[in-house]
Amino acid sequence: MLFELTDLDALRRSLTQAPDADEAALSAASERNRKLTKPPGALGRLEELAIWYAGWRGVAQPRITAPQVIVFAGNHGVTARGVSAFPPRVTAQMVANFQHGGAAINQLARVAGARMDVHAIDLDHPTADFTELPAMTDAECVRALNTGWTSVEPTADLVVVGEMGIGNTTPAAAIAMALFGGAAADWAGRGTGVDDAGLARKIRVMVEGVARHGGAGDGLDILARLGGREIAAMAGAIAAARMRCIPVILDGFICTAAAATLAKTDDRALAHCLAGHESAEQAHARMLSALNLEPILSLGLRLGEGTGAALAIPVLKSACACLSDMATFAEAGVAGGD
Amino acid sequence: MLFELTDLDALRRSLTQAPDADEAALSAASERNRKLTKPPGALGRLEELAIWYAGWRGVAQPRITAPQVIVFAGNHGVTARGVSAFPPRVTAQMVANFQHGGAAINQLARVAGARMDVHAIDLDHPTADFTELPAMTDAECVRALNTGWTSVEPTADLVVVGEMGIGNTTPAAAIAMALFGGAAADWAGRGTGVDDAGLARKIRVMVEGVARHGGAGDGLDILARLGGREIAAMAGAIAAARMRCIPVILDGFICTAAAATLAKTDDRALAHCLAGHESAEQAHARMLSALNLEPILSLGLRLGEGTGAALAIPVLKSACACLSDMATFAEAGVAGGD
Repeated sequence: MLFELTDLDALRRSLTQAPDADEAALSAASERNRKLTKPPGALGRLEELAIWYAGWRGVAQPRITAPQVIVFAGNHGVTARGVSAFPPRVTAQMVANFQHGGAAINQLARVAGARMDVHAIDLDHPTADFTELPAMTDAECVRALNTGWTSVEPTADLVVVGEMGIGNTTPAAAIAMALFGGAAADWAGRGTGVDDAGLARKIRVMVEGVARHGGAGDGLDILARLGGREIAAMAGAIAAARMRCIPVILDGFICTAAAATLAKTDDRALAHCLAGHESAEQAHARMLSALNLEPILSLGLRLGEGTGAALAIPVLKSACACLSDMATFAEAGVAGGD
Repeated sequence: MLFELTDLDALRRSLTQAPDADEAALSAASERNRKLTKPPGALGRLEELAIWYAGWRGVAQPRITAPQVIVFAGNHGVTARGVSAFPPRVTAQMVANFQHGGAAINQLARVAGARMDVHAIDLDHPTADFTELPAMTDAECVRALNTGWTSVEPTADLVVVGEMGIGNTTPAAAIAMALFGGAAADWAGRGTGVDDAGLARKIRVMVEGVARHGGAGDGLDILARLGGREIAAMAGAIAAARMRCIPVILDGFICTAAAATLAKTDDRALAHCLAGHESAEQAHARMLSALNLEPILSLGLRLGEGTGAALAIPVLKSACACLSDMATFAEAGVAGGD
């Protein structure tokens, strides 16, 4: 059982105490992999993924049977600045769509055999416009973090976090700029399809926000001041999964920005995370590279909701199935093993 | 019902008469895709894949429920020339492994929800060493083609063909060289892990084989003279799927070489094929590019058996699930559609 976070420091302390992958399971999985009926290395990245997963689950023959997709939704004060192609009421409409099973993530979670949970966080109370105020007070940020922190099923064996929040590529890009430096234009993309004028507004908003809050403390301080409720909730869920040694597949630009706030708070905070895909949102590749994450898929998605990560669930399931259920050379009586 | 092929010309005639994708279904799927609750284009390549699949199946809302993985095995006379890291008896041992469910492809087919069939073709009679004779007589080639041609379940809605055959990257590379030109070293890779001396032998064998047979007729003539039984069977299965409008996901280097013999026999022979992945076998990327095929995955696999293609089944399933089961803007009451 994870106690609710009382303040940002409680999360900082938790991260420093997070358990690491099990070395014995890593070795045992690696040893088993060498004996399987295939040429060494012939399953490419699947081998590395399966061994990595085995380490986090503490077993040499892991199987993924209980993946959980968690989608968080929030609204953003900066939408008043004309940074999105869609009106803010679409956030709540899409939450209803998630609840009725009609969104892309519903279909992808189903194909991947994952349960799906949706958390709409205070949609009637958008964050503050961060060009004027911190997007959230520390207390508001902690509340949103707790929504994520308590959302992870203790019995889940893989977690995908996704989001919906009209306007949220703007806070995500501002977070990236504050955490990693560079120019606003390096991090600003077209999100759901903003036009040139909208993109210019987005860049102005980012510059103003980062000028006001960019120097603040660590990743969690940046999260509170430039983030959003669904972004904080994703960070909370990723951190909770870390405490429980549940591997996480990260989604696209916004999810990765949420994760980055943890990485800039504690070096090992994302050790249990994979990048599910490289999004078409420009700058996602840049952020993944800054975090040393190599995407599993690259199919030009730019939807969020956890879609790119959910699409990678079957890849990880497949990797584990090979490691755990293939015959060894000795078992199969195949020549060529050691 | 597809009648057995009586000779190579029967296959040539069939290919010229193969049906094309359904234009009405393509339009209807494309129209439906535009109305789904997501920004236009936000599902990236999934959108294109689903619409393409809808066209081949002739329905605007396709669902993949009956994928079939078919693995063919054959032995090769050129193994006597020391072109592989494994001894030829491993082909039969691996067939037993497939039949007992212990190989990588068994696990991947299971995760993908696919049925799997295995056809071992005359393992006790390797093809001739193509540096001396044609690998197969036309009659032998037709027999192997028919094994594939009759292996496709008429009720399958997606087909993956894979192979096992110690030494078979050598005929595959020789086929590629004969069909696409270039030097032997451009097409020769390390297969299951041959050393430098083995690679040099492989290149010599390719050069000799292509010098002897490379000028022969069309793709099917090259298939008979430089190919192998499992390679011909894959070509037969791909062609049968084409006749039935069943989409095919191609696997790696050897499977793609089999497909290439059809493409060089009839321009439209691979219209129903996707490239499941880009293999780590050097020159696979080159062959895909020569065939204008863009791989779905790139995870460093180099195992064959259909593994890279099977791994792409859930991606295609997911694409179809989004197209067919997402709500439209109107259905979900979401603002922002047309």
